[in-house]
Amino acid sequence: MASGQLSRAEALACSGCRHACHVMLYSDTKTQLFGRIPIKHIVLMQMRFDGLLGFPGGLVDPAEESLEAGLSRELLEELGVTLPVSVEEHVESCYAPTTSPLITHFYRKKLDEERIREVERAAASTATDHGQEVLGMVRVPLYSVKGEEGGLAAFLSHSFIGIARSQLLDSLLCLGLLSPGELHKALTHALKIHTHSTEDLKAALTLTEAKRKHT
Amino acid sequence: MASGQLSRAEALACSGCRHACHVMLYSDTKTQLFGRIPIKHIVLMQMRFDGLLGFPGGLVDPAEESLEAGLSRELLEELGVTLPVSVEEHVESCYAPTTSPLITHFYRKKLDEERIREVERAAASTATDHGQEVLGMVRVPLYSVKGEEGGLAAFLSHSFIGIARSQLLDSLLCLGLLSPGELHKALTHALKIHTHSTEDLKAALTLTEAKRKHT
Repeated sequence: MASGQLSRAEALACSGCRHACHVMLYSDTKTQLFGRIPIKHIVLMQMRFDGLLGFPGGLVDPAEESLEAGLSRELLEELGVTLPVSVEEHVESCYAPTTSPLITHFYRKKLDEERIREVERAAASTATDHGQEVLGMVRVPLYSVKGEEGGLAAFLSHSFIGIARSQLLDSLLCLGLLSPGELHKALTHALKIHTHSTEDLKAALTLTEAKRKHT
Repeated sequence: MASGQLSRAEALACSGCRHACHVMLYSDTKTQLFGRIPIKHIVLMQMRFDGLLGFPGGLVDPAEESLEAGLSRELLEELGVTLPVSVEEHVESCYAPTTSPLITHFYRKKLDEERIREVERAAASTATDHGQEVLGMVRVPLYSVKGEEGGLAAFLSHSFIGIARSQLLDSLLCLGLLSPGELHKALTHALKIHTHSTEDLKAALTLTEAKRKHT
């Protein structure tokens, strides 16, 4: 196991730790973008209330409920559907040495495409957290467009909560949804897009600085 | 007008230019995040097929339809609802000197909160572009949480298509949804988050490089 990683049992034995559970919901798909680019897989993430991208889930108190029951409860609030999660879908537990120690438990759950669509519909309609803790569900593009820079590369250049980006990358490799070579290429382009974006942000800051002084 | 900006009439007179129309849909809201942080306004953006954040809309051919009719057509495809857009809602036209010259026309349209919710529901269910050209609708958080770093600052640190981020910033100022001081603070934090994210991306790239060589 990588540094910071614990087994589920070790994690539960940690006294005084807070626990958070998140899940990557995904499916296969035969649909094609523009009728010619295979989309291959649908992976769901969300825009969180804090403006960062992450997986659905939240805090669970193991003294009150099992990790998996707590995760299901969070999913009902955030996605508006009942999705049972089992111990077998647990992938890893990771210790984060923040001011108030936090253990993040990560799960992966495969659904069929129609169920993914139901999740998206419910998340935007009946879910109690919609417009509150969740600002919107998004699919992760696993393909590339616009000469490699568009699609997965651009998506990876966004800002993610905690270790969500590396959980996504590990999952894509582990599940064989992408090869290490494809991922390496996407990350190389992501870094380029990211660097370009820095210049853009600096320019916006300078412009706003001028407006602020003017008022 | 800033450099690159044209009037709507000048823009339409440009022969050989492609035209794209996008709109910022927004509303007021009285809801509060966690029952204590005023959300104030809902602003809709979307995760595009190319993995970047942008406003809904798309290419329009002025030889075939008016800019506004074309924009409405795009909105029906992307959002699944009929939203008439008028010339009065036009904000600016901007010339982008890409290989194939493009003029981007930007609109703003205020809706009431219930209509915004209808748009979100339809976008995730009946819209033909869902899961294709649009990977999901997201709300822009205009508040701050987690000591200024969360909320708008984190959102601004993402990657945007073309001039979408500056269209968002200009709109927040123009409509008085945020003060120049608030925006300046958010951008300062956005740049911090962005820099932190660069390190994260570099680490992920190194790790993937190792895995790629190993296979």
